[in-house]
Amino acid sequence: MTTASVCTIGDEILIGQIIDTNTAAVSEKLNGIGVRISRKVSIGDDPETIRTFLREELLSNDIVITTGGLGPTGDDLTKQCLYELSGARSWLLSEEQAAINREILHSRGLDTISGNVSQAMYPDSGEVILNKVGTAPILVFRFSGEEFPHHPVLYAMPGVPHETLTALPKVIEDIRQHFKLPTIYHRNIMTYGLAESALEEKITPWVKALPADMHLAYLPNTLTGVRLRLSIYDAEDETSAQKRIAEQIEALRPILGHVIYSENDDTLEHVVGQLLKGRGETLSVAESCTGGEISHLLTTVPGASTYYLGSVTSYAVPVKEKLLGVHAETVEKFGVVSSEVAAEMAEGVRSQTGSTYSVSTTGWADAYGDEHEPAGTVWIGVSGPHGTRTLRAVYHNDRRRNIERFAAAALNFLRLYILEGK
Amino acid sequence: MTTASVCTIGDEILIGQIIDTNTAAVSEKLNGIGVRISRKVSIGDDPETIRTFLREELLSNDIVITTGGLGPTGDDLTKQCLYELSGARSWLLSEEQAAINREILHSRGLDTISGNVSQAMYPDSGEVILNKVGTAPILVFRFSGEEFPHHPVLYAMPGVPHETLTALPKVIEDIRQHFKLPTIYHRNIMTYGLAESALEEKITPWVKALPADMHLAYLPNTLTGVRLRLSIYDAEDETSAQKRIAEQIEALRPILGHVIYSENDDTLEHVVGQLLKGRGETLSVAESCTGGEISHLLTTVPGASTYYLGSVTSYAVPVKEKLLGVHAETVEKFGVVSSEVAAEMAEGVRSQTGSTYSVSTTGWADAYGDEHEPAGTVWIGVSGPHGTRTLRAVYHNDRRRNIERFAAAALNFLRLYILEGK
Repeated sequence: MTTASVCTIGDEILIGQIIDTNTAAVSEKLNGIGVRISRKVSIGDDPETIRTFLREELLSNDIVITTGGLGPTGDDLTKQCLYELSGARSWLLSEEQAAINREILHSRGLDTISGNVSQAMYPDSGEVILNKVGTAPILVFRFSGEEFPHHPVLYAMPGVPHETLTALPKVIEDIRQHFKLPTIYHRNIMTYGLAESALEEKITPWVKALPADMHLAYLPNTLTGVRLRLSIYDAEDETSAQKRIAEQIEALRPILGHVIYSENDDTLEHVVGQLLKGRGETLSVAESCTGGEISHLLTTVPGASTYYLGSVTSYAVPVKEKLLGVHAETVEKFGVVSSEVAAEMAEGVRSQTGSTYSVSTTGWADAYGDEHEPAGTVWIGVSGPHGTRTLRAVYHNDRRRNIERFAAAALNFLRLYILEGK
Repeated sequence: MTTASVCTIGDEILIGQIIDTNTAAVSEKLNGIGVRISRKVSIGDDPETIRTFLREELLSNDIVITTGGLGPTGDDLTKQCLYELSGARSWLLSEEQAAINREILHSRGLDTISGNVSQAMYPDSGEVILNKVGTAPILVFRFSGEEFPHHPVLYAMPGVPHETLTALPKVIEDIRQHFKLPTIYHRNIMTYGLAESALEEKITPWVKALPADMHLAYLPNTLTGVRLRLSIYDAEDETSAQKRIAEQIEALRPILGHVIYSENDDTLEHVVGQLLKGRGETLSVAESCTGGEISHLLTTVPGASTYYLGSVTSYAVPVKEKLLGVHAETVEKFGVVSSEVAAEMAEGVRSQTGSTYSVSTTGWADAYGDEHEPAGTVWIGVSGPHGTRTLRAVYHNDRRRNIERFAAAALNFLRLYILEGK
């Protein structure tokens, strides 16, 4: 099996100054094309360590992917190390990357300075994959000779997440071309609302009836739900594999119904957005305990302005009353975390904005509750053409995590309301 | 120098299913007490790999910290591997951890099931540090004998971030007690508003005048600004080191003024919250392009409800007009991303909620702008007892990152207004 080591280079990640989000994306893509990740490693900016370490990884893996260490500052020494490690004899200039760099720097009102021209230079022992959104190209080194009879390939990618993610498809394409990988075909089915064990129980007959060469993996995530990954390894041809998996998903659909929210990798906020866009309908939000998180999630989706009108975050009770029309008596009688307040909040923001639908939250995210509801409780409201509905949920996490879980639960409740009209 | 290897165990992180946020926190704390991180490594759930790998790391490091692999499911095999690796002869029950586990499970409405009792079991070759917020205790193994003449220590921590962070101080305390670490004393000074190079230029005379045993590090972060870390290694006694660093910060303060937002590790949202709390004043927010991110950040701070009243996220222009009182003519004349609209939004939400201060954003987070302003532009407004002020900023990131940078810039602009009244 083709193996890979995924490495980050740089003191920033080693000493915990920044969190590494890059290698998760890289590993997931590699895993998806049938490459086995042997390990992920972060090392510092020391040249001796970089050289020794990369050589070792090349000796014991088919693929080595590095991120980071390609920047213009003196700390970033990876390129020089790669020059030496790969036995280069001179530096070449990528004219195409230099042209991109001039444009990027110009758009930022900067002149092309020497440090950034040198970004487009690369060792003559390697090849370049263009970086279209940054100034450091991706470098590819194909090793061979006595020391490397297994012909490992090293891909050096920039460390800026946006640049890594943009360049990743090109790297994956190169890997697929140069390595004999199993024909592997996946589909991800995203579910929300059933715990792994409950889901497993519900689909057991379907799982048992799966063809022998089809593999199912459960990938649970407390925020995004359980992802079901259906795979065929070593399929003879992709078209028929694709068709066979689609048939199985067809059979799964009536069993799980709207528990499935995406048959690709879409997020809940994306799915809700697509639903609204397709119907030409609009949405507004009233948040209390989630404090803006639902609005934030919805507006990370490009094009959200076509269906998302706006929101009111009403932390203080008077704001609930004034901007959302929640009645003081309702709060007094049922408590601020209650079905009744959630309903009035949803109705209030919908009437204020004139949106087709609205969703609201009121809850205790912290480690305390009140006489009506315990800590970790949220009441969610949705309002729309089919009336107003509410839902109660309780979680046992810390403040930040509870907020995130409340928001995910609210988006799902809204999705079900839009789909089912009830 | 004392060295450490920080490891995560589990396929979830190796194949990129989840992002590792734990080891950044662990590494930062280790770095802070003068331990050098040699590398960070993620490996999978395979017992053979875990055993071989941990032995190697123990041979070449003084400290090995693992996170993950201690859960109740069959996939989590670390504890068994540690049993074998450390030459244990039997399992012991931590009565104290078992009592905690019963309470945790009871509060979640679950009976104590066998899988979770076994969570409180540990190899007799190790010691336990209690996990007060989860069911898997921290395991400590002190290695010695011919194979390990340098007496390395392995700390096995649970993988749930909340549990890792809660247990971390106890682990750090144990390390300080058992290793001869340099007396190292740090202070972090958080700055916002000057790029690293500009900051460096401004404080050069101060840096040159620093005593020879005092070390300054620049730790830039596009969201939180440049952190300055002032350290003394091998100080004779902590009290005098503390005093000497405080004196230098005293000297730095007039040079940087309000560019410094914290002399500890506080976030902008925390600092703004503390300012308001101290003055008994309140805040409201009007967001357009940031879509709820500012409210979300403010409400992640425990106790935010004492000063944060609420917000309006007005994505659609009619919502800006109706809920915030923005005039249609203002939008028409100056464009929706303009100083004038930012000002009216800030004034509108302040008058609606009756808050002492308000902050607003209107901008283009995406890769397009309009005839008034280019992509990446934000106008920020603040309103309060000293009138209304606006600020323009431009960033060149992708949508998600631009939103985060807009929000940070808005929080800082608000902070300066509260502090300076102008």
